[in-house]
Amino acid sequence: MVDVGGKDVTDRRAVASAVVRVAPETARAIRDGDAPKGDVIGTARLAGIQAAKRTSELIPLCHPLPLSFVDVRIEVGDTEVAIEAEARTSAQTGVEMEALTAASVAALTVYDMVKGIERGVEIADVKLIEKTGGRADWRR
Amino acid sequence: MVDVGGKDVTDRRAVASAVVRVAPETARAIRDGDAPKGDVIGTARLAGIQAAKRTSELIPLCHPLPLSFVDVRIEVGDTEVAIEAEARTSAQTGVEMEALTAASVAALTVYDMVKGIERGVEIADVKLIEKTGGRADWRR
Amino acid sequence: MVDVGGKDVTDRRAVASAVVRVAPETARAIRDGDAPKGDVIGTARLAGIQAAKRTSELIPLCHPLPLSFVDVRIEVGDTEVAIEAEARTSAQTGVEMEALTAASVAALTVYDMVKGIERGVEIADVKLIEKTGGRADWRR
Amino acid sequence: MVDVGGKDVTDRRAVASAVVRVAPETARAIRDGDAPKGDVIGTARLAGIQAAKRTSELIPLCHPLPLSFVDVRIEVGDTEVAIEAEARTSAQTGVEMEALTAASVAALTVYDMVKGIERGVEIADVKLIEKTGGRADWRR
Amino acid sequence: MVDVGGKDVTDRRAVASAVVRVAPETARAIRDGDAPKGDVIGTARLAGIQAAKRTSELIPLCHPLPLSFVDVRIEVGDTEVAIEAEARTSAQTGVEMEALTAASVAALTVYDMVKGIERGVEIADVKLIEKTGGRADWRR
Amino acid sequence: MVDVGGKDVTDRRAVASAVVRVAPETARAIRDGDAPKGDVIGTARLAGIQAAKRTSELIPLCHPLPLSFVDVRIEVGDTEVAIEAEARTSAQTGVEMEALTAASVAALTVYDMVKGIERGVEIADVKLIEKTGGRADWRR
Repeated sequence: MVDVGGKDVTDRRAVASAVVRVAPETARAIRDGDAPKGDVIGTARLAGIQAAKRTSELIPLCHPLPLSFVDVRIEVGDTEVAIEAEARTSAQTGVEMEALTAASVAALTVYDMVKGIERGVEIADVKLIEKTGGRADWRR
Repeated sequence: MVDVGGKDVTDRRAVASAVVRVAPETARAIRDGDAPKGDVIGTARLAGIQAAKRTSELIPLCHPLPLSFVDVRIEVGDTEVAIEAEARTSAQTGVEMEALTAASVAALTVYDMVKGIERGVEIADVKLIEKTGGRADWRR
Repeated sequence: MVDVGGKDVTDRRAVASAVVRVAPETARAIRDGDAPKGDVIGTARLAGIQAAKRTSELIPLCHPLPLSFVDVRIEVGDTEVAIEAEARTSAQTGVEMEALTAASVAALTVYDMVKGIERGVEIADVKLIEKTGGRADWRR
Repeated sequence: MVDVGGKDVTDRRAVASAVVRVAPETARAIRDGDAPKGDVIGTARLAGIQAAKRTSELIPLCHPLPLSFVDVRIEVGDTEVAIEAEARTSAQTGVEMEALTAASVAALTVYDMVKGIERGVEIADVKLIEKTGGRADWRR
Repeated sequence: MVDVGGKDVTDRRAVASAVVRVAPETARAIRDGDAPKGDVIGTARLAGIQAAKRTSELIPLCHPLPLSFVDVRIEVGDTEVAIEAEARTSAQTGVEMEALTAASVAALTVYDMVKGIERGVEIADVKLIEKTGGRADWRR
Repeated sequence: MVDVGGKDVTDRRAVASAVVRVAPETARAIRDGDAPKGDVIGTARLAGIQAAKRTSELIPLCHPLPLSFVDVRIEVGDTEVAIEAEARTSAQTGVEMEALTAASVAALTVYDMVKGIERGVEIADVKLIEKTGGRADWRR
């Protein structure tokens, strides 16, 4: 684990995204609340938020961080579910992994919620969109 | 949670994959063991295996399963890290989510291990490759 | 921990309930989806299901059990939120604590979701309703 | 999750209580250390303290907090076990949920420890007693 | 993770031990219930039992197992605390790591409970005593 | 749990060690990467780091701490594996238990990785080497 003890405590923020590709009927079932296991968007959103809080348990060399904010926003298009996750903290290291973990687990949860109606669903493009705070800001 | 109490206990197996796109120098650093946080492949492999065991904690409507086998295999190409995860159990429900979770968390761990040398790394194509056992086998 | 190694594996089922007493305006906000932190019923339901899966981590002398089914049903009355949780397994010991833990954590989550609009909310009457399987069935 | 990043870090304290109603013989067994699974009070106390530390894992929209103190005090009356839980931190948000979670899990543990001698035990009156710190103090 | 899918389900049992070396006054304080943080033996016993249930989370390549029994027995001598942990299951692989993890975490907990009165406490001799079930029994 | 709310936040550091006694052929297999379950040193190192982050879940009365650094260093001798774990934080209480937990779980992991080739492996001498920060420094 990198020693972050000498770094300044600054406000940190990161946004990550993920895309789940689905068939048009699957997208419709999600929007209409007709998926077999219930509310896909609400469940994926909560799963992502909760996963962000467990990032340091999942990623071996991540530091535990006192998150001040996590949110996961989900939009359902014609053939994809677009996920955007945001994490914030005031700490000595950034929250990129928290945002990426939230986006990934939200995407996995979408998969789980619709796999009864579509087997071949793919998760594409899990990536960081921006980060602020720390040494330097970054924007894709 | 779907009631699986009436299903037969059968041998289940699932294989999932993920791809992490990296710059050629990042791929080289991973292969040469020169990444800033140490052994990328070994760390990602263990993180994936451990995540498979926690799938039912991460995915809200997943059943807890007594996994009999999990493995994560990682190959480093010129501009990508290819991850393949496999899970097996003998249970009333399948291990797709376990394999997908292992692949996703291994990919996130690769990201974490190289983010010090390359910011824009993307995780692409997290998907199920095959599943056997249960009602019907499936192969992509 | 009691040794259950000599017991038969039988189908087990338990139902527990909890009641959260709220003001009429709070009940209305929950029903209308106007609570400050979002969807109270959906969030409490998921929290309860996930807590059932972690019962053996929370209750020191509980055995880990392979749950085949968990559900949490929530109804909003004029001055209360009624929670019913059900757990099922096929195992050497029962799922009472899983059902009770699901009901309790769902109730705590209702509290958390409405505490911004009503401080004095109380959780009342967390209790077992029935259990079947094992030595003897029981009904309140 | 509510964004608490703009709030002041202040000393926070919350006290919650729970009551477990038991038969007189059960109360006697608890007091005399004769309950079937061993020391009821000590086990419930520890379970409550440990649960407080896991509140943000159990309650989906709770922030992770660096608790500086948790205690659970238990008194056995003639027909009830009275539980009082206290949590403290210095943070941007309060510790009500931590105190309530500690009281609830301590109560569930009392239930688990005596269910071999009394089936119909009920948990009643899980509620906040007082909170200090943050915008305003509150006392029931 | 080793594939245990082809192995027979048999009754498995393992016993492990650990020794914590303490000063005579520390041993006396433990026995008399005068240690600064409270009941040393009861707390260490519960910590060990709970740790056994989390072995597969702590030891990366361990399989999750449905434990049917765990116990931790602790005896306080003149200059040592002797810990014996036992785990049982009916599964395709053994419970050595569960017994060893229980003994280790119980020993660490003894350390934590007395470190306020004696700094130099050492944990010695964490070892397997015997295992039965599976291919062959073994006794130290 | 001891109330640390009134203590100063200071930089804290602790180093602990553990020794795993093994047969010469086992030591050779570890060094040569020939152990049956793969890379012993890398796996034990990661397991120790991850365990440090979960100390407050394992040790009932430990405070959750925002660790700024954890490392585990492992050296393989002729008949032993020497483990040294270090933890750092800036907090109101020390990180002795984190360092000791990391050393213990790394040692347990070494055991797990070689138990297929040597049954009688023993963990000896888990102890604190030094701590700095807080009321007083200490060195063995």
